[in-house]
Amino acid sequence: MSISFINALSVSVTVVLIKTSHSGNIGAVARAMKNMGLCKLRLVEPKNFPSDEATRRSSGAENILNSAEVFGSMDEAINDCHFVVGASARSRSLAWPLFNPRECATKVLSLIASQSALVVNGTEQLAEPVRKVALVFGQEASGLTNEELQRCNYHVNIPANPEYASLNLAMAVQVIAYELRMAALLEEESDLLSGTECAGAEEWEGELASVGEVEGLLQHTEATAIKLGFLNPAKPGMLMPRLRRLYQRAALDKMEVNILRGILKATLNQIGK
Amino acid sequence: MSISFINALSVSVTVVLIKTSHSGNIGAVARAMKNMGLCKLRLVEPKNFPSDEATRRSSGAENILNSAEVFGSMDEAINDCHFVVGASARSRSLAWPLFNPRECATKVLSLIASQSALVVNGTEQLAEPVRKVALVFGQEASGLTNEELQRCNYHVNIPANPEYASLNLAMAVQVIAYELRMAALLEEESDLLSGTECAGAEEWEGELASVGEVEGLLQHTEATAIKLGFLNPAKPGMLMPRLRRLYQRAALDKMEVNILRGILKATLNQIGK
Repeated sequence: MSISFINALSVSVTVVLIKTSHSGNIGAVARAMKNMGLCKLRLVEPKNFPSDEATRRSSGAENILNSAEVFGSMDEAINDCHFVVGASARSRSLAWPLFNPRECATKVLSLIASQSALVVNGTEQLAEPVRKVALVFGQEASGLTNEELQRCNYHVNIPANPEYASLNLAMAVQVIAYELRMAALLEEESDLLSGTECAGAEEWEGELASVGEVEGLLQHTEATAIKLGFLNPAKPGMLMPRLRRLYQRAALDKMEVNILRGILKATLNQIGK
Repeated sequence: MSISFINALSVSVTVVLIKTSHSGNIGAVARAMKNMGLCKLRLVEPKNFPSDEATRRSSGAENILNSAEVFGSMDEAINDCHFVVGASARSRSLAWPLFNPRECATKVLSLIASQSALVVNGTEQLAEPVRKVALVFGQEASGLTNEELQRCNYHVNIPANPEYASLNLAMAVQVIAYELRMAALLEEESDLLSGTECAGAEEWEGELASVGEVEGLLQHTEATAIKLGFLNPAKPGMLMPRLRRLYQRAALDKMEVNILRGILKATLNQIGK
């Protein structure tokens, strides 16, 4: 038995859009949600929905639009939720617990991870979540009202350029959903990911060269440079230390060592002629 | 004297869009950039630019569109840059160093943080950056081609839902720029450069080679390999892509390029005899 945090997000998290003016934004939100593995969308008094523009901008995420639920008020839309986070562009007169998107993701993950219903059996099925999280976004031009913000447990703020702080609605959903997905992936793969300081090395298709193989390349290089008259053994300077640092920094694979030695060999053959 | 990482990002990072089809996306990218404090935009063969649609979607970020530079090829657009990150939707046949957006941000920050030119005086002015970072995004429908991806030091991949992995272009820029801004803000808050794990944070004494300089080295290498009979131009195979990947991964400094070209020059001189 293991916990799938990605599945947990998709069943536990609902995006709630309040009084969205531009139906294209609803479509773009659906696409951003689906990209990040979210699927539950609720709309409060959308100006125009469903609409062709929303469908067009959703670019293949119509299933999220088709299953979107429409409500007459924020109260109804969040009624069955257990934890409500409201997107806030600015700090308000009445201070509220405020997260950045990363802190928000950590908080949401910790909430849904503690649900026993999220334990996944062999079929990767999840029960209806015990804890439903709502992420609430206000109207494009004005954001959530003070009254709406006060219906939230926490606020989340994207730390944007203070001189130009207003993100497009779907962009804000994208960033917050991205942080949720990253948090879930990091939880699932914490063992793996904690090791990837210089990423990708573990998925390298070629075997890394051994110290001895790199050493062989360096000696071959030195001999060639001397033969070429490029390196004076009496006054070697920093040439070889610099090449050593370069090749070690790059963490050469065996094929790369073979290529470089192949060139050196061809060079020595030509010079010998 | 202190280092402003937010300022460092804005002067050091350039977003490069290749052959963008929908001009609205260019506007949305400009808005996302400005929201995250980036300002340098380069366009390679945009289908339609400038355009009213781009201006409309930029929602007040016209200054970024107005100062955008248009180029005829990716080569020209990245020629003066020192470190190139390409957005990649999927893993390729020839594995390349791959980051997620958070790792990418750490890497970029560590690269630009070690520039002495970033020390800010009282007027918060910054010199022309010594290290220019390009973030390259391909055409909407197809992304970067394999050839374009091979021009990059590293690839960055947004860990999206595998069943629906293609983000809108501006959304991808938003996420990657958001991670850069978060990394910069966290650095400024913590004031702990020692916390950066990835290479580059240490003071590199040499100036990084530009893309053009590395390109010169690669052409010199190719010509030499052909002259040596090591590379058959009629059947080049993967020799040059592998050497390109190696040199780009290592992020060569100018001195290293000079050493390697010195060896090649000496080789060609000897063969010529």
